[in-house]
Amino acid sequence: MRKVNILKPVLVSNIERARENRKVFDKMNSLVINIISSPGAGKTSLIQRVVEQFKKRYKILIIEGDIKGQIDSGRLSKLGVDVIQINTVTECHLDAFMTAQVLPQIKKKYDLILIENVGNLVCPAEFEIGEDYKLAILSTPEGDDKPLKYPLLFHLAKVVVINKCDLLSHVDFKLKRAQDGIKNENPKAMIFEISAKTGRGLANFYKFLEKELNAKKKKAKS
Amino acid sequence: MRKVNILKPVLVSNIERARENRKVFDKMNSLVINIISSPGAGKTSLIQRVVEQFKKRYKILIIEGDIKGQIDSGRLSKLGVDVIQINTVTECHLDAFMTAQVLPQIKKKYDLILIENVGNLVCPAEFEIGEDYKLAILSTPEGDDKPLKYPLLFHLAKVVVINKCDLLSHVDFKLKRAQDGIKNENPKAMIFEISAKTGRGLANFYKFLEKELNAKKKKAKS
Repeated sequence: MRKVNILKPVLVSNIERARENRKVFDKMNSLVINIISSPGAGKTSLIQRVVEQFKKRYKILIIEGDIKGQIDSGRLSKLGVDVIQINTVTECHLDAFMTAQVLPQIKKKYDLILIENVGNLVCPAEFEIGEDYKLAILSTPEGDDKPLKYPLLFHLAKVVVINKCDLLSHVDFKLKRAQDGIKNENPKAMIFEISAKTGRGLANFYKFLEKELNAKKKKAKS
Repeated sequence: MRKVNILKPVLVSNIERARENRKVFDKMNSLVINIISSPGAGKTSLIQRVVEQFKKRYKILIIEGDIKGQIDSGRLSKLGVDVIQINTVTECHLDAFMTAQVLPQIKKKYDLILIENVGNLVCPAEFEIGEDYKLAILSTPEGDDKPLKYPLLFHLAKVVVINKCDLLSHVDFKLKRAQDGIKNENPKAMIFEISAKTGRGLANFYKFLEKELNAKKKKAKS
């Protein structure tokens, strides 16, 4: 029988590239979270809180996706953790190839890699980048109907953080309606109700994250 | 000399298609506004206010862009004006071709056509659809740094409405900083500070819109 070598195409698909990224993250046993929300829903504020809570015990890297500028990475680098900036220029989302481009800049092992995607509920959900899971943030001023209107993200996100709960009495947002909308898309979604501003509800979220980080450590040892 | 007929390609560009749409709108002397914002910033609420204010004196059509569903068009059709729904399915923005597809459904002349784009600050700004101008909405809970982070929209929008000003005392949003950010991208931008919820600042915006509508009417007569 003649053996035919099938050459791997140079241009791989996004999903293939995401799997390659995943291998790099797996070698470090990093927990990688792809954080997605509308503009201004609180991605940077949540990251800031998580970094403050965990930076003494875990090595943390932030990959910061923005169309333009370095406003958020400037804000985050003050916390004393490593931040890598990706400017997507005209693209409204991060994809696996953009993420791959910054991998050579990762010189250390990190326990936790937080990737802040571009502020957008649509396209960021469509592109895997090598993450363990997607975390969606829904802020209360946006309205409780967003899971119905942007279903793909809420279908795919393992974790949904409802942020700006300090504004609940000032905005038209019913927690029950939002939860039902999320559960309708993804019955297994973990939902946390928080205020990154006041700290409300964060203890529960930290407990969950700590468990995830420990699970990774256990896996690394086995 | 031999004459060579160059056939017009079937697939025209978005900008060419937008110009064709424009011709249809011009025949009706319609004022066409492409309304763009983040999810939940108040596009539907602003449209609702404008319809209530102007529907007795002007013929209004709403073209409603959503990934999925008819939540907003349901809400708006209760106001007794015509609403055409476009579901973009996987696309994160309206383009001139999607808009062209619904033009045959327009059977009357309208003075004002309000097009509610998909909730997204990025791609909707990149596609002209035949509008007179883009109107961007920035809501206060999103933060005053958005013009710096999503510059194209604020560069292109003739009108910027800062919405949810009723929440100003509860959120970290400096009007001056937002105005400076907008003016930096577009020194000629008209900026209105409103609350679609309480009605604050709407009188000024209505006055502006009335002027625009009258200018169209004058043009029609001349």
